[in-house]
Amino acid sequence: MDLNYIEHIGIAVKNIEEATAYYENVLGLKCYSVEEVADQKVKTAFFMIGQTKIELLESTSPDGPIGRYIEKKGEGIHHIAFAVNNLENQLADAASKNVQLIDKTPRKGAEGLHIAFLHPKSTHGVLTELCEKKE
Amino acid sequence: MDLNYIEHIGIAVKNIEEATAYYENVLGLKCYSVEEVADQKVKTAFFMIGQTKIELLESTSPDGPIGRYIEKKGEGIHHIAFAVNNLENQLADAASKNVQLIDKTPRKGAEGLHIAFLHPKSTHGVLTELCEKKE
Repeated sequence: MDLNYIEHIGIAVKNIEEATAYYENVLGLKCYSVEEVADQKVKTAFFMIGQTKIELLESTSPDGPIGRYIEKKGEGIHHIAFAVNNLENQLADAASKNVQLIDKTPRKGAEGLHIAFLHPKSTHGVLTELCEKKE
Repeated sequence: MDLNYIEHIGIAVKNIEEATAYYENVLGLKCYSVEEVADQKVKTAFFMIGQTKIELLESTSPDGPIGRYIEKKGEGIHHIAFAVNNLENQLADAASKNVQLIDKTPRKGAEGLHIAFLHPKSTHGVLTELCEKKE
């Protein structure tokens, strides 16, 4: 695979307003976008730090992936996302190296990116997202 | 506080040789340094991706912080580290905003950086490190 940089870090939070206040008032970052991704049952808030975004994720439903994650592990860092070119080729390369794909083909994520997840069972415990910006 | 960029992402792994093989052979990153930090009871391996490092952490003892983390939560993303200037001022600012400090004063970390950790109880579940490169 060929990774360009860390596109974002996804962080699961219980209350996105309270967490946003911490990221803004304590860490000094600025929320530049909020978005609901109904498909994933999450509300998101984005902050830029260097070349990387922080994506806060609050579940809109206890049975969504973030709701289940917090139930099991508590609030915290949920996933890491790498910017790539040619996402389909990267997925094929990962599969050829026995990485278990959560998404066999790209789908639409927040901010209009094409995304796909690799299963943490294949990545030493790190839920890993690949993101491609399509023109 | 005033954060510059994400200096590194710390990832707890059970076996640093196996994890390094994954980061090199599957993700296509290159390990540029390995270091043991006796104080923290860890072996570390570093990879560069964009402006950020990935720091793999294997415990050298079951009772070290990474050993206990893996026992409780399994392998995965352990902490996020922000590059800052004037680390002591940043800590004072954090403390003034009721953030619980794990390190009240900077100490030496891997790669000769001056570091300090913020407690995840005060940071919405994210173990947060601040790093300053001293000349």
